[in-house]
Amino acid sequence: MDRIRIGILGYGNLGRGVELACAANDDMELVAVFTRRAPESLTLLTPGATVVAAAELEQWTGKIDVLVLAGGSATDLPEQTPAAARLFNVVDSFDTHANIPQHFAAVDTAAKETGHIGVISVGWDPGMFSVARLYANAIMPNGADYTFWGRGVSQGHSDAIRRIPGVKDARQYTVPVPEALDAVRAGTNPQLSTREKHTRECFVVAEEGADKAAIEQAIVTMPNYFADYDTTVTFISQEELDRDHAGIPHGGSVIRTGTTGKDGENTHVIEFSLKLDSNPEFTGSVLVAVARAAHRMAAAGQTGCRTIFDIAPALLAPQAPDYLRAHML
Amino acid sequence: MDRIRIGILGYGNLGRGVELACAANDDMELVAVFTRRAPESLTLLTPGATVVAAAELEQWTGKIDVLVLAGGSATDLPEQTPAAARLFNVVDSFDTHANIPQHFAAVDTAAKETGHIGVISVGWDPGMFSVARLYANAIMPNGADYTFWGRGVSQGHSDAIRRIPGVKDARQYTVPVPEALDAVRAGTNPQLSTREKHTRECFVVAEEGADKAAIEQAIVTMPNYFADYDTTVTFISQEELDRDHAGIPHGGSVIRTGTTGKDGENTHVIEFSLKLDSNPEFTGSVLVAVARAAHRMAAAGQTGCRTIFDIAPALLAPQAPDYLRAHML
Repeated sequence: MDRIRIGILGYGNLGRGVELACAANDDMELVAVFTRRAPESLTLLTPGATVVAAAELEQWTGKIDVLVLAGGSATDLPEQTPAAARLFNVVDSFDTHANIPQHFAAVDTAAKETGHIGVISVGWDPGMFSVARLYANAIMPNGADYTFWGRGVSQGHSDAIRRIPGVKDARQYTVPVPEALDAVRAGTNPQLSTREKHTRECFVVAEEGADKAAIEQAIVTMPNYFADYDTTVTFISQEELDRDHAGIPHGGSVIRTGTTGKDGENTHVIEFSLKLDSNPEFTGSVLVAVARAAHRMAAAGQTGCRTIFDIAPALLAPQAPDYLRAHML
Repeated sequence: MDRIRIGILGYGNLGRGVELACAANDDMELVAVFTRRAPESLTLLTPGATVVAAAELEQWTGKIDVLVLAGGSATDLPEQTPAAARLFNVVDSFDTHANIPQHFAAVDTAAKETGHIGVISVGWDPGMFSVARLYANAIMPNGADYTFWGRGVSQGHSDAIRRIPGVKDARQYTVPVPEALDAVRAGTNPQLSTREKHTRECFVVAEEGADKAAIEQAIVTMPNYFADYDTTVTFISQEELDRDHAGIPHGGSVIRTGTTGKDGENTHVIEFSLKLDSNPEFTGSVLVAVARAAHRMAAAGQTGCRTIFDIAPALLAPQAPDYLRAHML
């Protein structure tokens, strides 16, 4: 069996997650990692894979079946994905929900003009959470959707705390409110405010001599990030942060409750939930499964942009359709 | 918008569930219910829909876009689905897991020869549980699968009890063992025997003068059905059964736990769970969403047999792809 040749653009936490996922799949081969850093500064985990300057991407057309983009959604992917889709089949994890339509259009144009497949917004949210929402809505047109995130690390909120004067380091956890989760799972269809759904736990390392009361006040009143939540701030040492908060766990639940029957007398609860020790390694694993699908769609002559909504589930699996029917259906 | 014209073959609990699901979807129109009973003995819930003798099915080609088969898997569907696939696009809920490959082959031949789409094994297991298993396996190649059913009514087990001499009526609930569920959700990857995963609760109405001890003994020692489980038997009156056990609830959880990382150091738990007040109404809701997909695949010129594995999720939803991307991704 010819293995699917994978390239990765970007070698942060997500890029390494993609690399590990390639190693976990026998039909995948990591060929090259492209970086904007000095290539010699990177050491890969994968024997035989090459580190290449991102500027040399064009020279790898024909040597890579799918390029997985492991950059950020704020500035990297809006540029990188359409550009890369002119050279390769691509998969990204673009997660700025509001800008998905314009990102889709840009990738679609680039991929169609050059005969490639581009799959965007792959991961768990957007991604597996989205597909859970879609299935549940299609099955239960009369109902309500709920998404809870956590317990998990929010990188954006951690960064926001680190920008406060006097803060040396910080880790923020998003935590679903147990009573809210219970009420939703019970099918009571509650109306929940932002504050009622999640709390925020902040672990902060203050610089020596910093005004901790002022830091705490700055956090809990910060608009958009914390003001609408019940937020707790705990000051700890750098050693404690490094020891107890080094992981990047995340997860959450997508729940749809709906009714059927002549008079809506029967209630149903559909839930998809994830509990992840490593957010980037799980996201990388989804990206690699979708890279397999992208390769197959391209091999079948398809072109243009796709999302997880457009991909038949069987295309993600390494096994043949008859095996899947006999063993997983 | 032209509505999708639906026919239903069979009007038991599942057929009525399909009917209710048609009514819940604006783009669906129930045209006719086909029955082997005397047509005049049926009263539909849907104004304008017709009851027709099953023998007249052939006269409805061209008047129905998708026929939903609502019969049983033991004897009805192995005959009905391939035969109906020669006349219509069809969707069924064939759930004899071991016979899916041969059922697929029979429907595939019939559908391809006559230019139709046939989707088999649609519902929640097989169906939504299957697709949850497939996604989780594709994402986490290193892991273990667990399926728990219940708390819910098993029709097959209830029937088995009713066949015991001296039993007037019975209802059997399959119940997952909470400690087993907790261990799996904690990611400890336990090896679980049949007995450790589920218990069986039986509510039995005995005929007057029947030997209850003998009935209980016959139940708990019954091979395949009960002998491998911790089974409780509670004798109640017919009034109590009718009052407290009239519903057909079911549900369960598909869980995959897996690891990622250089040395498998990170554990992930993926869970899809259902809590259903009405098994047949939920199954009917899935069948109708898939009927929409079948109609679209047929309209696109596709033919042959499909399962939920082969259907891009967006095909199930009534909304347009750009709406789905903007609102559900």
